Amino acid sequence: MIKIVILGGGNVALHLFSALKSDAGISVVQIYNRSIKKLEHLRNEIALTNNLSELVPADIYIIAVTDDAIAGVANALKDREALVVHTSGSASLEDLKPNKRRGSFYPLQTFSKEKQVDFRTIPICIEAENEADLDLLHRVASAISSQVVPISTQQRQALHVAAVFVNNFTNHLYFVGSEICEQNKLSFDLLKPLIKETAQKLEMLDPFSAQTGPARRHDISTLTRHENQLKQENHKAIYKLLSASITTTYGKKL
Amino acid sequence: MIKIVILGGGNVALHLFSALKSDAGISVVQIYNRSIKKLEHLRNEIALTNNLSELVPADIYIIAVTDDAIAGVANALKDREALVVHTSGSASLEDLKPNKRRGSFYPLQTFSKEKQVDFRTIPICIEAENEADLDLLHRVASAISSQVVPISTQQRQALHVAAVFVNNFTNHLYFVGSEICEQNKLSFDLLKPLIKETAQKLEMLDPFSAQTGPARRHDISTLTRHENQLKQENHKAIYKLLSASITTTYGKKL
Repeated sequence: MIKIVILGGGNVALHLFSALKSDAGISVVQIYNRSIKKLEHLRNEIALTNNLSELVPADIYIIAVTDDAIAGVANALKDREALVVHTSGSASLEDLKPNKRRGSFYPLQTFSKEKQVDFRTIPICIEAENEADLDLLHRVASAISSQVVPISTQQRQALHVAAVFVNNFTNHLYFVGSEICEQNKLSFDLLKPLIKETAQKLEMLDPFSAQTGPARRHDISTLTRHENQLKQENHKAIYKLLSASITTTYGKKL
Repeated sequence: MIKIVILGGGNVALHLFSALKSDAGISVVQIYNRSIKKLEHLRNEIALTNNLSELVPADIYIIAVTDDAIAGVANALKDREALVVHTSGSASLEDLKPNKRRGSFYPLQTFSKEKQVDFRTIPICIEAENEADLDLLHRVASAISSQVVPISTQQRQALHVAAVFVNNFTNHLYFVGSEICEQNKLSFDLLKPLIKETAQKLEMLDPFSAQTGPARRHDISTLTRHENQLKQENHKAIYKLLSASITTTYGKKL
């Protein structure tokens, strides 16, 4: 039985708890959070604490707090023999410095409070400084996910940037789409099937082959007309830059 | 029975044919294409021609060719009494000028040769210059789609630009993600669940509320670190511009 303490009360911590608790080989023994109020609904399921000096013994401490808070929480664990990991995409293992056994446990997904997730489909990237710890993390990750990948810190940080492009920036493009709809008294719902299909297409085609549109076709007259149509400066700037980037990708120039 | 001739042999034309042919109230009587070779596989299903002077009589001629070719094809229909429409997101009805009854029939989706589409989920935007023609288009569109929306030319052109943002540009961000993965010896598959979830989230949250990430949090230190991490100039430029646009959207400045 692998004993785990989760530190944090945000979306990653709570989704992780609900995935881990149902595995027979794993026992989540405690959740720590600065504010315990947020976790009251779990009171009957799991031991809770808001006091870092009251943490119970465990094999792994999973720190799922904001990047800025990692070092502070890790410091309270400095005398433990256990493995200490964080769930951050960008923090280095240096942030866990006082600990002897350090690692990371990075689930590559966006978590919302409102939405259940199927952890089996979420890649978990793991990292540790020795084989035994990597094995331990592998056992835990495999218990909840079907895609477990050992990676380096540099790879994890690269994945985190890539995730910003495909998640944060993509969502902002959806927002621009919704603004254009609103400005033209159109329902944003009209764009939703297209948005879904754009994502689903990757099951069949890599994004290089899937590219379509005026920039891909080097259709200068449509590009110019579109730019003139756009009223907001940031829309225009995004339109120009992304069209130029697509054009260059396919060996042409604007 | 509404008789339809489809003009064009591309993805829109062929997907439209396969959706329309199964409706009892509609009869596709002919497909025209400049090159008939491309359509040989339909030889036993439908009358084919590559000669604009051999078009058979119909109630509606649907021109599903590239924007540049619309006017040429429309010109061959100038003496017909029938309704002539195109499927373009950006062409005006002027391109159908010689015809007396003009309109547009714009399915808002991206079509690939390789992938079947469920037309019922695809919004069809329709436009005509009089009520009777709009009704006729409504009947045809409703036969294959559950979302039919009468719109103006200006609205259609705005939708087309919005579609470039949520489809073409989004796909390019997927491509940037795949480049970052490749440069770091990571499988692009790791990003696919995140990509899917980003699109699916719109079922629950509008894109303004769904926004997350360092730019949204105004987390300057992560933004700076990410920029420094990126090696390719176009990646850096996209990162900066989209982060600035997100930051401004939420009332801050970079």
